[in-house]
Amino acid sequence: MYRQGCLGFTSQAKDIIQENMSQNRIYMDYNATTPLDPEVIKSISEALHEAWGNPSSTYTAGVKAKKIINESRENVARMVGGKAEDIIFTSGGTEANNMVIQSAVEHFKRSRDGTECNTDHSNGCPGLPHIISSNVEHDSVKLVLEHLQKEGKADATFVPVSTVTGRVEVQDVMAAVRPNTCLVSIMLANNETGVIMPIKDLCWKIRSLSKRRSQRILLHTDAAQALGKIQVNAPELGVDYLTVVGHKFYAPRIGALYVNSPGTKTPLHPLLFGGGQERNFRPGTENTPMIAGLGKAADLVTSNLSEYESHMRRVKIYLEGRLKLVFKDKLHFNSHFQDSEILPNTCNVSILGPNLQGWRVLSGCERLLASVGAACHSDMGDRPSHILLNCGVSESVAANALRLSVGRGTTEEDVDAVVEDLERVRSVP
Amino acid sequence: MYRQGCLGFTSQAKDIIQENMSQNRIYMDYNATTPLDPEVIKSISEALHEAWGNPSSTYTAGVKAKKIINESRENVARMVGGKAEDIIFTSGGTEANNMVIQSAVEHFKRSRDGTECNTDHSNGCPGLPHIISSNVEHDSVKLVLEHLQKEGKADATFVPVSTVTGRVEVQDVMAAVRPNTCLVSIMLANNETGVIMPIKDLCWKIRSLSKRRSQRILLHTDAAQALGKIQVNAPELGVDYLTVVGHKFYAPRIGALYVNSPGTKTPLHPLLFGGGQERNFRPGTENTPMIAGLGKAADLVTSNLSEYESHMRRVKIYLEGRLKLVFKDKLHFNSHFQDSEILPNTCNVSILGPNLQGWRVLSGCERLLASVGAACHSDMGDRPSHILLNCGVSESVAANALRLSVGRGTTEEDVDAVVEDLERVRSVP
Repeated sequence: MYRQGCLGFTSQAKDIIQENMSQNRIYMDYNATTPLDPEVIKSISEALHEAWGNPSSTYTAGVKAKKIINESRENVARMVGGKAEDIIFTSGGTEANNMVIQSAVEHFKRSRDGTECNTDHSNGCPGLPHIISSNVEHDSVKLVLEHLQKEGKADATFVPVSTVTGRVEVQDVMAAVRPNTCLVSIMLANNETGVIMPIKDLCWKIRSLSKRRSQRILLHTDAAQALGKIQVNAPELGVDYLTVVGHKFYAPRIGALYVNSPGTKTPLHPLLFGGGQERNFRPGTENTPMIAGLGKAADLVTSNLSEYESHMRRVKIYLEGRLKLVFKDKLHFNSHFQDSEILPNTCNVSILGPNLQGWRVLSGCERLLASVGAACHSDMGDRPSHILLNCGVSESVAANALRLSVGRGTTEEDVDAVVEDLERVRSVP
Repeated sequence: MYRQGCLGFTSQAKDIIQENMSQNRIYMDYNATTPLDPEVIKSISEALHEAWGNPSSTYTAGVKAKKIINESRENVARMVGGKAEDIIFTSGGTEANNMVIQSAVEHFKRSRDGTECNTDHSNGCPGLPHIISSNVEHDSVKLVLEHLQKEGKADATFVPVSTVTGRVEVQDVMAAVRPNTCLVSIMLANNETGVIMPIKDLCWKIRSLSKRRSQRILLHTDAAQALGKIQVNAPELGVDYLTVVGHKFYAPRIGALYVNSPGTKTPLHPLLFGGGQERNFRPGTENTPMIAGLGKAADLVTSNLSEYESHMRRVKIYLEGRLKLVFKDKLHFNSHFQDSEILPNTCNVSILGPNLQGWRVLSGCERLLASVGAACHSDMGDRPSHILLNCGVSESVAANALRLSVGRGTTEEDVDAVVEDLERVRSVP
């Protein structure tokens, strides 16, 4: 059944979701991935049928594909407050994050050696480039940095988040800056706790500092979990790079990278070499249908964000209220932090007590589909999430964590059913 | 209208193609890209609706997606004669080609420094890794090598193809081998001339040589233009790596890399770091619907290749016959070489005479949609293709070249109409 408040998401979509979730399962893992919006599927299907031409071809079929790609570029740009030329389509968030980090390292080396044109002059920094990140980043940032460290190609500092606020604190990042710091990469919102990071303040401080240095410090935020949930405006945040991940906002499995005037204001070095597509920043014949879908999903976000946001927030507040009512003091919200803003859809919660580990509870649920942390860590078995531990959640509480994330179509009935499900599991001996 | 002989490709598909090609245009640029087979579109659509779960999630939606991905992996493996575990899905051919080359360089460095496990011991080669390729490769091989050369990270030799056969000759490759040669990367079939390269012989010779060296020479072929047109069996060819590009065989815009037992028999180093997907060789949440489409298209190739091949060959022979009849000695086939096998669908032809440059002829055509060379070089204006020049075609003949490539659905009526079109253009003063 579908309710008032689920604007922009049709009953057809709800049917599809329900159909997928056999035996009335209720999906509350929208931070892992979202279904595709029916309008997005429509755009993809149209492009599959009608815009299969090679976008580099100069005849009708190619021109049509190119037009769709450029319209999508404008839609994605509008969603993040940028210009069309700031958007580079990528295969996904992982590629976008890898590209930013590798590009910053390359830029540092070229600046150090005085071989970079149109950007900074020699940065006067001998030695390795230094990158600052946090200890709650996605693996597509964390593991790139660890790889570069291991290879002796870069130094990295993983600034610990505050265990009081769950955030990376601006002063902690500033204290980590070194003369050879070339990039700060901090996610906009955490995928497990939903904590929104102080990117705007951070950018402002870093930019002030950059003015007094020979080489500016580049700024990147992975906005994978924020887009489609809260307002994201790259120029207002002040970032140089921002990662867009389609499948977190009802779009297909591709991504994009926002770069503030790539190649002129902001250095960007390609990871791949080939046929010149995406102005040589990201060659490879363009995935027109997926790009069409990404553009449509971005357009939906631009048009309906406030409705999506308020709906998800209302349902999440209702969920937290119901959980409190049922579990009383046998509950700990791992997504509640002093003074921190949280994504409107994310509720990370532990039901306290023995034998109530997250994986155990979820496997006992008849209706709830959720996770204990990031999907790409789903093979970690019963080990508690290192993200929660890094946020100061104790080992025993973290072990019981459930990451519940609601979507545009989640209803209060869904919440009631989920809470009932959890209550039943808890009472099983 | 649809004819006998176009097996495996329905009248619905033909309608779609015709619909796209407004005003009865006839598409003969199948080497640039193909439409999607209707069965492929069906597989993609089903996955878009029903398999949107994160393949790393452990509940139904994730498990279903994972199952589709693994079935596709088996289908792609079967198409190229490999095992499922030999297939790594990538965003496309460009990424696959870049990955092979970067991986070979990385492997050389680690072997040189004695840090590689499970493969070779120290190769005893000081200095730079050396890679052999040809002078008719796609930009996603050529430009990676040029970039590595420019950066001082590798040496490369671009062996010229024979101007008699249009092929890379095995003895020329063997003569280019150096003590520090770590990779030979030669395409299986050329995208402009359709010439099929002697990869099997080459692999045999290189393998014999490798046995007498401290480090073996790795072998890669980019099979983008060969798959779906001729039989391709990676183990029979003897390659270590083989690039698969979906959109050349009626599949969507993703690709795959065949690697003979990656990480054990054959070294493979990832380009990207992230959430562990594709056994860490290529992380990033999997593009389930596109992978589903790739798998279906691979299955169609496995089942129907001989029909596809004989149909395309028959239509191409008919095309060449009609052209000869009409243009007589005012014609030069740039895809006819002594003793060389040519793709069954590719006819590269120049209509001889002044003011008959390829771009000029195509812009005068009312029905024919084709190209003068690779789509990613479509911005080169009226300069003749460097591929044809490298194959020994004279500048004036190369300037008039038309690359006509037929598909599974091209009919003899299409050919008649195209030849009529070309005749009309030629006779325009």
